[in-house]
Amino acid sequence: MELKSIGIIHSPHQRAAGAPAQVAFAGGSVGTVEIFPEYSGGVKDLAGFERIWLIYWFDRAVPARLEVTPYLDTEPRGIFATRAPCRPNPLGFSPVRLIGVEGHLLRVADIDILDGTPLIDIKPYVPLFDSFAAQRIGWCSRIADGVNGAADDRFAVRDTKGLADGPP
Amino acid sequence: MELKSIGIIHSPHQRAAGAPAQVAFAGGSVGTVEIFPEYSGGVKDLAGFERIWLIYWFDRAVPARLEVTPYLDTEPRGIFATRAPCRPNPLGFSPVRLIGVEGHLLRVADIDILDGTPLIDIKPYVPLFDSFAAQRIGWCSRIADGVNGAADDRFAVRDTKGLADGPP
Repeated sequence: MELKSIGIIHSPHQRAAGAPAQVAFAGGSVGTVEIFPEYSGGVKDLAGFERIWLIYWFDRAVPARLEVTPYLDTEPRGIFATRAPCRPNPLGFSPVRLIGVEGHLLRVADIDILDGTPLIDIKPYVPLFDSFAAQRIGWCSRIADGVNGAADDRFAVRDTKGLADGPP
Repeated sequence: MELKSIGIIHSPHQRAAGAPAQVAFAGGSVGTVEIFPEYSGGVKDLAGFERIWLIYWFDRAVPARLEVTPYLDTEPRGIFATRAPCRPNPLGFSPVRLIGVEGHLLRVADIDILDGTPLIDIKPYVPLFDSFAAQRIGWCSRIADGVNGAADDRFAVRDTKGLADGPP
């Protein structure tokens, strides 16, 4: 099962430390999704959607661990009970807001993804398919209202683009 | 970017024709997710979550197309504006209900996934991260209340498990 990059995500977040840990914490962050020419035909009809899922490869995460202490917690948790990037298959997804589509470029807001991240897929966000009022949310019930929600460098490696993502 | 299967999804849906097209249409469908032993340490703390995302490989989809007529529509749409399986990277995700965890086996409900599908990742469903009241939903606004929501064989190939998924 081999993935190919279908584009690149451009964002204001150059390193994990200080980047929003989730879309909900991304405030006004705006970015651009660049779709490679051979896939740009696939974005037809996307402009009608207010929100879209970006599926991407965590290209600057440390190797997989089965237990991690997540950003918003203080205790080790099973990796599949977290959204940490150092997963056996380092895939992330983010339900960003779609501001506009210009040819092969998508303008998006609420972006919590690092600049230069390889894009794997896009799907429309549809509340009927994706929005559920789950009451039981395990350790996440400890996440306080108004929490800062910034990531740090605990799961970051020095990236491939020459930027130090760990402590300087 | 190479994926490895971390488990297998067991479900009552043997073929695309008649299977639910989305979790919302899966009614009482119950299935079991089998996590391979080397990854079972990662499910710690998962039992606290009411709903989980299963990320999986559409192993019985026809090759990628950039335009498709989706199950719930009658007009061709850009593939990234749909949830059709024949994507450049054939990844699906489903926010299923978690009923119980017994060692490396997860019992789940609302399953819309074909039996035998390779599991790629699991993430907890957290409304703060995942649930949004998007108003503009493009062509999906045509999906009628109470629609049947069953898939058919338009995107299915004869599968690798000896079951005919296309017309007999």
